[in-house]
Amino acid sequence: MAVQPSGFVKQIEPYLNKWRRHLHQYPELGFTEYYTTSLLGEELKKLGFTVYSGREALETEARYGVPKASEIKANEKRAIENGVSEEWMDKMRDGHTGIVAVYDTEKSGSHLAFRFDIDALPIEEAEQAEHIPHKEGFGSRYKGIMHACGHDGHTTIGLGLARFIAENHEHLKGRFTLLFQPAEEGGRGARAMTEKGWLQGVDEFYSGHIGINSLPVGTIAATTRGFLASSKLNVYFKGQSSHSGMKPEAGRNALLAAATAATQLHGISRHSDGISRVNVGKLIAGNGRNIISDRGYLELETRGENQDINQYMQTEARRIIEASALMYQVEAEVEFVGETEEVKCDESLIPSITKACESSEFITRVDPYAMVSGSEDASFMMNAVQANGGKATYMLFGTYLPDNHHSPNFDFEEEVLPVAVDAYIQIVKGVSEIG
Amino acid sequence: MAVQPSGFVKQIEPYLNKWRRHLHQYPELGFTEYYTTSLLGEELKKLGFTVYSGREALETEARYGVPKASEIKANEKRAIENGVSEEWMDKMRDGHTGIVAVYDTEKSGSHLAFRFDIDALPIEEAEQAEHIPHKEGFGSRYKGIMHACGHDGHTTIGLGLARFIAENHEHLKGRFTLLFQPAEEGGRGARAMTEKGWLQGVDEFYSGHIGINSLPVGTIAATTRGFLASSKLNVYFKGQSSHSGMKPEAGRNALLAAATAATQLHGISRHSDGISRVNVGKLIAGNGRNIISDRGYLELETRGENQDINQYMQTEARRIIEASALMYQVEAEVEFVGETEEVKCDESLIPSITKACESSEFITRVDPYAMVSGSEDASFMMNAVQANGGKATYMLFGTYLPDNHHSPNFDFEEEVLPVAVDAYIQIVKGVSEIG
Amino acid sequence: MAVQPSGFVKQIEPYLNKWRRHLHQYPELGFTEYYTTSLLGEELKKLGFTVYSGREALETEARYGVPKASEIKANEKRAIENGVSEEWMDKMRDGHTGIVAVYDTEKSGSHLAFRFDIDALPIEEAEQAEHIPHKEGFGSRYKGIMHACGHDGHTTIGLGLARFIAENHEHLKGRFTLLFQPAEEGGRGARAMTEKGWLQGVDEFYSGHIGINSLPVGTIAATTRGFLASSKLNVYFKGQSSHSGMKPEAGRNALLAAATAATQLHGISRHSDGISRVNVGKLIAGNGRNIISDRGYLELETRGENQDINQYMQTEARRIIEASALMYQVEAEVEFVGETEEVKCDESLIPSITKACESSEFITRVDPYAMVSGSEDASFMMNAVQANGGKATYMLFGTYLPDNHHSPNFDFEEEVLPVAVDAYIQIVKGVSEIG
Amino acid sequence: MAVQPSGFVKQIEPYLNKWRRHLHQYPELGFTEYYTTSLLGEELKKLGFTVYSGREALETEARYGVPKASEIKANEKRAIENGVSEEWMDKMRDGHTGIVAVYDTEKSGSHLAFRFDIDALPIEEAEQAEHIPHKEGFGSRYKGIMHACGHDGHTTIGLGLARFIAENHEHLKGRFTLLFQPAEEGGRGARAMTEKGWLQGVDEFYSGHIGINSLPVGTIAATTRGFLASSKLNVYFKGQSSHSGMKPEAGRNALLAAATAATQLHGISRHSDGISRVNVGKLIAGNGRNIISDRGYLELETRGENQDINQYMQTEARRIIEASALMYQVEAEVEFVGETEEVKCDESLIPSITKACESSEFITRVDPYAMVSGSEDASFMMNAVQANGGKATYMLFGTYLPDNHHSPNFDFEEEVLPVAVDAYIQIVKGVSEIG
Repeated sequence: MAVQPSGFVKQIEPYLNKWRRHLHQYPELGFTEYYTTSLLGEELKKLGFTVYSGREALETEARYGVPKASEIKANEKRAIENGVSEEWMDKMRDGHTGIVAVYDTEKSGSHLAFRFDIDALPIEEAEQAEHIPHKEGFGSRYKGIMHACGHDGHTTIGLGLARFIAENHEHLKGRFTLLFQPAEEGGRGARAMTEKGWLQGVDEFYSGHIGINSLPVGTIAATTRGFLASSKLNVYFKGQSSHSGMKPEAGRNALLAAATAATQLHGISRHSDGISRVNVGKLIAGNGRNIISDRGYLELETRGENQDINQYMQTEARRIIEASALMYQVEAEVEFVGETEEVKCDESLIPSITKACESSEFITRVDPYAMVSGSEDASFMMNAVQANGGKATYMLFGTYLPDNHHSPNFDFEEEVLPVAVDAYIQIVKGVSEIG
Repeated sequence: MAVQPSGFVKQIEPYLNKWRRHLHQYPELGFTEYYTTSLLGEELKKLGFTVYSGREALETEARYGVPKASEIKANEKRAIENGVSEEWMDKMRDGHTGIVAVYDTEKSGSHLAFRFDIDALPIEEAEQAEHIPHKEGFGSRYKGIMHACGHDGHTTIGLGLARFIAENHEHLKGRFTLLFQPAEEGGRGARAMTEKGWLQGVDEFYSGHIGINSLPVGTIAATTRGFLASSKLNVYFKGQSSHSGMKPEAGRNALLAAATAATQLHGISRHSDGISRVNVGKLIAGNGRNIISDRGYLELETRGENQDINQYMQTEARRIIEASALMYQVEAEVEFVGETEEVKCDESLIPSITKACESSEFITRVDPYAMVSGSEDASFMMNAVQANGGKATYMLFGTYLPDNHHSPNFDFEEEVLPVAVDAYIQIVKGVSEIG
Repeated sequence: MAVQPSGFVKQIEPYLNKWRRHLHQYPELGFTEYYTTSLLGEELKKLGFTVYSGREALETEARYGVPKASEIKANEKRAIENGVSEEWMDKMRDGHTGIVAVYDTEKSGSHLAFRFDIDALPIEEAEQAEHIPHKEGFGSRYKGIMHACGHDGHTTIGLGLARFIAENHEHLKGRFTLLFQPAEEGGRGARAMTEKGWLQGVDEFYSGHIGINSLPVGTIAATTRGFLASSKLNVYFKGQSSHSGMKPEAGRNALLAAATAATQLHGISRHSDGISRVNVGKLIAGNGRNIISDRGYLELETRGENQDINQYMQTEARRIIEASALMYQVEAEVEFVGETEEVKCDESLIPSITKACESSEFITRVDPYAMVSGSEDASFMMNAVQANGGKATYMLFGTYLPDNHHSPNFDFEEEVLPVAVDAYIQIVKGVSEIG
Repeated sequence: MAVQPSGFVKQIEPYLNKWRRHLHQYPELGFTEYYTTSLLGEELKKLGFTVYSGREALETEARYGVPKASEIKANEKRAIENGVSEEWMDKMRDGHTGIVAVYDTEKSGSHLAFRFDIDALPIEEAEQAEHIPHKEGFGSRYKGIMHACGHDGHTTIGLGLARFIAENHEHLKGRFTLLFQPAEEGGRGARAMTEKGWLQGVDEFYSGHIGINSLPVGTIAATTRGFLASSKLNVYFKGQSSHSGMKPEAGRNALLAAATAATQLHGISRHSDGISRVNVGKLIAGNGRNIISDRGYLELETRGENQDINQYMQTEARRIIEASALMYQVEAEVEFVGETEEVKCDESLIPSITKACESSEFITRVDPYAMVSGSEDASFMMNAVQANGGKATYMLFGTYLPDNHHSPNFDFEEEVLPVAVDAYIQIVKGVSEIG
């Protein structure tokens, strides 16, 4: 056989670790991944991929929850300070981050697409002795932002796969599309790539996550079940300020409206048809200590095992928000800023994935499926592929986690990176290797 | 008679309006009044006052609620950009704002002290057609900060009085201390001036407020009753973040702890012994939409008609905060950041004030007292004066208000400025004019 | 002088104590004072008063908050078991309790009215060693009902005064109306007596309370200030029940709507114009543990230092109730069940009361006024008297209390009874004694 | 074949309907099923069963949540009024209801046990035209109590099965134990029968429910999955009463503590490992409108897909209760009053049940399993049978429901009764018919 993937993977392990640790130091929030995008773009071009970015990669109007102009500007300024070229900035300006990298072998064969999410989270990374990124000096350089969901790993896996395709293209047939997607957190970016048409004609679609479900390194799941439909809402409460000592009765308290909404939203009844979730993840309200607050702001999400349950959650949420406003005689405006769809992996991919991975030196076990209960906007891409007759799956790559996803101490075992790269390589070989 | 105060006041009306409108455009929050302080200092020096500022004016450790270093720095930078000299910045650095201006006639007589507060509020000024500062082009130049409590007027009144003293010093005896105090909002600055000793030896102390209690322009009150004792607390809730979709049960929700505390605090039972107040004026919590929040922050205050009632409110508040933390299994840390004392005006000043103001062309009525229910850290100064055998009062100067104190549409009739200046001048004449 | 009141009072002290201790054992809730009424009626007839009861005493439709039919029936049954005659029951049936007793001397003179409230409270009396009614064997015989506001004392005082009038009628002139009013708690009974016309033509009206304001026995107040306007509301929430395990999302939870309303109502903002109060005193909701509750019931009251503040409280309360219903998608019906008015005592009565009481051996001090902050439906009677040109006051009679009004350990010093009887006698003598 | 079950069932349909409609009119709450028990006992004796009741049937101390003495007495009184004999009352007194009926064929064979729950719910039955029990005149005769969960049907099914066994005993072998269990609602009765030892030696155990999961009449499920572990708690809050107008700050408000606990309990975070539930089904608090409440009472339950999740819910609940008490400075006492265990049906029974039902004229479809999410204390019996090597299942019998279980309009199609009776008969025949 011409290609020795496991040997290849062993060889590039230092490359993977270097990238992962570099990316970990430069976490960027959704639609501000300017530095990350430019780095990726340059590397993928170097490898021989045709690289699409900016408005070529994303449908501007299909992005959800783009940060406000002042944040965008501040992040663009920082990117420039970090050395991102004017040329790159021109393409990406105003929140057009992410890369679509295409490799066409120009030999007839399947069109495979792989998707990697690249954004980080607004979490302040731990600085405790036992937290490896801190201990080994590759902790976040941006206070309050952190790769706390492993997307630095996902991005790295994408680069590893890209190297394999580029360096082995002579033995491969068909076409490869690698989607480095911005703004997965909050379900904000996938729809914008999907609506640009990148999934049209895709025969098989693969994405995945590291470190869910307590699987040990070496164990992977070919498919997942249980990704939740979700909706993301922002709420603006507007009341009337007043002096809290001299005229408390003249205020209409938007802070208390927001606080009441938050606690009440978490009390939405469970649904007997399946999993539901609600979370108010941000609450900002008030002016000063001695002012009845005239403004309150919430960021929240609902989830459901299917669209109906999510719709139930959203309907309940909207009524509770309205009632909280009435409670304090303030006004509430609800802004819809993101969503993910429920999605079903194609179980017909299980045997081929299982078989392909049999010969891997990195993979010790392939589970047919794993249960999860998060949400993923890869759902937009998967549903688009399936709507066109293609097949799609979302895989898991096991690793022990010292703390939960989205926690300041989140970290993963770097040994998962070659496992995931090798899994994708084996899949590519299984489908696209020239016999 | 050598001095014609009302004639004098008429003469300086343009000076008053010019100052008021200039100050209104440059509102600064407590302990960051760098620009205001330097402007005042230069003007008072020019008038012939001996001017004390920085650590000479304030006891560093007795300041409450000094903003955090990053805010202080940002404000110092802006002050420099606005042209404040290095010399002034050196004195004021690290939140040492405010001026004590002394005029000693070197003739034996009473020591009178007058206090004016100079800070603004974190409120975004209205930009509606009918809001005069906006309409006439002297609205706040700093988005989100506003003179919404009339301290621009108070500061101006102080300058008017200073001009009178300076220009008429030959006809006056005794000593005059004018305290331009920072950080009245939140009850944070008066104690720092008081502990520096400026009130020692003061025979009579006067301060006051414009626009409380719906008195028309021309009506003043010689004393006030009902200033509340108050306490200011900041609360930090600390929980555990987690992915809200995948592991909601692993989070310990500090956002909900803060929200629950806010609504519960507003439900503290009224007290049968008198007026009580509570307000949570700021709530900031959360990281991102899909993260169970690990942090929540509150700014609150309690008030009481006397120290006992305020103590009751504070005790209740602390228990509620503790219970809210327990409710969500998070930790709560309470920081004490400011207070005001209850205070009683000397009613024995009523006849002398009333008599002194009889001949004013600006003052149409002197009420012996007015009821209020705010809090004032002038209380620290008044209590200090009274403890040493001096007399103290807090006066009101009537003006119609289009909206409540601490509202975006707050404004006052500029005609109140000469009224207040003249009232103080008449008092000075009554006590200190050389017979 | 023909009458020796203090001697008289000393003489009837055993009579007073006997009555008080008997009444204390038979507490009856508002509009079910069947036993109490019949006892009083018989005694007053025996003394020579003309006695009016039932629909002669009360305007049926002007009663507020009459208990539901089943409670009325149960109480009527108990009254019959306790020996109340059929004749009395016929008059009182369906919640027509209370007595108006009239003594006309048939000599020209003033018409004086005195009012005594006779109802008890739904409180379970303490059975602790130090609680005197328990220790000395005259505790409540009805579990869950208690004279915890001293109305057993008030009723007794009325009988003492009645004996004086009856036994000394030859020395008195004018007309005396004694109103033994039902259902003071909740402000439910006074209006019904008032609307029947009993206060028409009254020249002076006296009522009062024992044991408010920590005055010692022997001290009385001639007038009170601060009685609050109040409103009483019942709220019925109606939702949809469902199995809490199998179909929780199908329920519309009226229990949580009621609970949310309760906590939110207690958070209505204080009012800067004066005293306000709110209390949810009863909450009953739910069916069984595993049923989403379809019903919730609240009893609440609002109070204000004046009608405007009370109206503010009531408006806020109604909006909060509506919002709580919306929060859980249930319906809320608000029933208005009682009110008291604000009231001003005639200060012109202070000198005559003070003078009249000077010679009493029981009264050591007469304060011109005392501050209170409860509500009293005597306000209806007082306002009616004053509207017709008469004078009215509400007095206080000092006694130490081991626990607050409306507490299971409430009790008073029986020495206050002769003090109050003597005060009224002295007033009667001052106005009505034949010179 | 000697036995013609379907023919038999057709024959007894009038008997089934008569019993069901009679029982529906006499609903009795858990541990007060005096009338129901005596009726059943007499009927089963008449059929030839050996009947055990009272302390022979139940382990006194293993009962959960026995009603308080006064309720027990009131129900015993009513039972006697309804004609229950002294002999029966003697056995059942103090909440010892329920029947164990045994039929021993005295031929060697399997020991089969069937369990039927007999209690009703505290729900007021609908009186709407379309509600069949109301329309056809067999609605509940006890206001506020209702067979709203179909246990009248279950009991009837038990009698139908008993008739079959009795009338066909000559063709059957082995032993039959029919458990007519009290107090299933709240999970209070099963443990008491289990601990008495009735499940020892049972080879196969069958129980079931009508009308869950929208299956049509004729469809049954051989097993169920998803019964939840559950815990039942009562909570007593104890505070301090006070006059709400005169001394609000002296109260410690147990009503608000209970209300706060209720709303907060419904906000316990969902668990990512599976289904969880919480419900506060009853809240009673307060004394009177103008009294700060000194008492509050809650009835609540938690559920979980497994014991760990239920334990998580219970731990959260207890902390929230403690925090609610601290919030209002009151005391909380938690009483543990019932529980159900998670349970797994033996899937090895599916083929035999399916086969046995094939020939039924009433059964059109047998599903291997159905998903549910309620709780069942049959779990105690099932776990006991399985622990001894027996097999156990819980079946479902389809019927359309006009409204949810535990709703005032709950009803079922009476056609489900012969379906369920025939299913059990076919099972009996399959196992016990003499070949």
